[in-house]
Amino acid sequence: MPEVETITYPVEKLHDFSRSTFMHFGVPEEDADLAAEVLAASDLRGIDSHGVARLHTYFDMLDQGRINPTPELKIIRESPSTATVDGDNGLGLVVGPKANKIAMQKASEVGSGWVSVCNTNHYGIAGYYVLKALEADLIGWSMTNTTKLVAPLWGAERMLGTNPIAIAFPGKEEPPIVVDLATCAAAYGKIEIAKRKGHPIPDGWAIDSEGHETTNPEEMIGGGALLPLGSRRESGGHKGYAMAVMVDFLCAVLSGANWGPFTPPFALRQEIPERSVGRGIGHFFGAMRIDAFIDVDEFKAQTDEYIRTMRSTAPAPGSNGPLIPGDPEREAEAIRSREGIPLVMPVVEELRDIARRTGIRFD
Amino acid sequence: MPEVETITYPVEKLHDFSRSTFMHFGVPEEDADLAAEVLAASDLRGIDSHGVARLHTYFDMLDQGRINPTPELKIIRESPSTATVDGDNGLGLVVGPKANKIAMQKASEVGSGWVSVCNTNHYGIAGYYVLKALEADLIGWSMTNTTKLVAPLWGAERMLGTNPIAIAFPGKEEPPIVVDLATCAAAYGKIEIAKRKGHPIPDGWAIDSEGHETTNPEEMIGGGALLPLGSRRESGGHKGYAMAVMVDFLCAVLSGANWGPFTPPFALRQEIPERSVGRGIGHFFGAMRIDAFIDVDEFKAQTDEYIRTMRSTAPAPGSNGPLIPGDPEREAEAIRSREGIPLVMPVVEELRDIARRTGIRFD
Repeated sequence: MPEVETITYPVEKLHDFSRSTFMHFGVPEEDADLAAEVLAASDLRGIDSHGVARLHTYFDMLDQGRINPTPELKIIRESPSTATVDGDNGLGLVVGPKANKIAMQKASEVGSGWVSVCNTNHYGIAGYYVLKALEADLIGWSMTNTTKLVAPLWGAERMLGTNPIAIAFPGKEEPPIVVDLATCAAAYGKIEIAKRKGHPIPDGWAIDSEGHETTNPEEMIGGGALLPLGSRRESGGHKGYAMAVMVDFLCAVLSGANWGPFTPPFALRQEIPERSVGRGIGHFFGAMRIDAFIDVDEFKAQTDEYIRTMRSTAPAPGSNGPLIPGDPEREAEAIRSREGIPLVMPVVEELRDIARRTGIRFD
Repeated sequence: MPEVETITYPVEKLHDFSRSTFMHFGVPEEDADLAAEVLAASDLRGIDSHGVARLHTYFDMLDQGRINPTPELKIIRESPSTATVDGDNGLGLVVGPKANKIAMQKASEVGSGWVSVCNTNHYGIAGYYVLKALEADLIGWSMTNTTKLVAPLWGAERMLGTNPIAIAFPGKEEPPIVVDLATCAAAYGKIEIAKRKGHPIPDGWAIDSEGHETTNPEEMIGGGALLPLGSRRESGGHKGYAMAVMVDFLCAVLSGANWGPFTPPFALRQEIPERSVGRGIGHFFGAMRIDAFIDVDEFKAQTDEYIRTMRSTAPAPGSNGPLIPGDPEREAEAIRSREGIPLVMPVVEELRDIARRTGIRFD
């Protein structure tokens, strides 16, 4: 298999380019900087699908006036520990961090804070938000619903998003445990890669447009659907489906956003649902003060012990033993912050296209 | 396949027998009633493994003085929206409902309430607690860690419990959506049933004592382990593992309970871990006031719409289309509250044994 051609850029350069692109559409500098930070965090952590690879999508949506570059967030309902936020159709990359801060602020006041957000757009990686909470010794939660791509168990069509959940726990000497997972069996990006390479996909990932399981990536992409985590009834597919529903409720039904098949698309090429049942997509953020439950130092020491215990598990044959959630992303970050972000040529071309159309320099 | 022989009892009879059994050991009447109610809820909802089928286990633990029949719950730390509760080594069936009430009370005061519990024992079905929250128009969350039974992805031994998560959302005309799932691929009870019948188990459920995948239920039971939801790396086994870790942290690391392989056993026949890293097992309860986020009526109307939308999904070939989380349990409850609870003979024999040893009448 030939290596895929890439060009490597320092993360700062990509960050600056993203910021300038957002500012080109009138996004205020501070917001543009925030949005660029979320994308850069994704690239650094090796989640290529959610970094600058998405910049052209945001570009398109801003260019077409489908996203508001200067949103004014509004708290439309609140209690001491909760809030519902209207994101004013802003970039999720801006609305998300601000709503997350409200959750963190409430946590500092009453022990925990929970914020459900409507009228927002794609917010990048779920993990970004819980890492921000960690900096303040808060256990952060982050969820978002997304455009439909996943079939409910026993369904033959796309009805749910990939609806990710993230949560993180800080260690003392050990790095934090960072859980960040989509509630489907495999990421859409992996199906696209298989298609590009002409490879079949594993059993349990997807169905075709008639609801039959398929190992042909083109059949999933051309009108099929992803399967929920667990894939089939006997291996727990009802559980992944139920988790996707949970995320949808906390993000969208609770905030007044669109849910399920009515969730609006994040890209121009995607179809706009024929019905709307709310405003925009939805996010959900939580923050809990560790010291509201237990001594922070004791908690972190136990986290260290937990990590060391799991690492000492007898390894399954042919493996090096269990990883800790967040290991792969942290290792990617260590390498990429040193060596830069490798971008595949289609992504480089997209950034060059933005440069051509905006006059922002990219080389 | 011959039908398994069962005897059917009215739920009230089983409830009364459980209550009397608990009272036999000095559990106060009100607490005994609560504990019996949790077991009966499990039997009614068709989760046979967690109802009176467990009564003999509680009997043993009380009989040996391993569980405190008269615990005094103590809040050892709190903030307006959070609390850490020490369950004083009581029955989880008593500690759980009381801690859940604290979460509900805090929600009524400041919008949400979050309670992490240490020094407790097996609490029955996770779903019971979120149904109690629903009665007060609260979105309830419930989690518990449990005795080790599950291998982390790429591990060859039991290191984690089946660590379930439950959450529920109320409908208006439609019944509530009740998510209640263990974070492993399949329940231990299903492995036991396969063993009894001499059947193989599906791929992806379990490993043997050396960490190889097995379809032989005896190999799992005799020193192997369950696999996390997702089963393997390529189908998302790291996600089920990460969820089990999340539950362990919220229930145990946050409360000061035992976690992972150090979680104490719930039955006499199980080995006591050589080390203790905390007190008892742990639970985690949450409650969020719906009206702290959105109008309750609007929320419930959207839930109805959500349910109807999911039910209208094009069905996968050979299926009747998607269920709604909670459907199977609600259907079981409708039948069993009318027709009674069918108990298999080994369970009947266990109840008869309790009757013989306590003098409580059971026939």
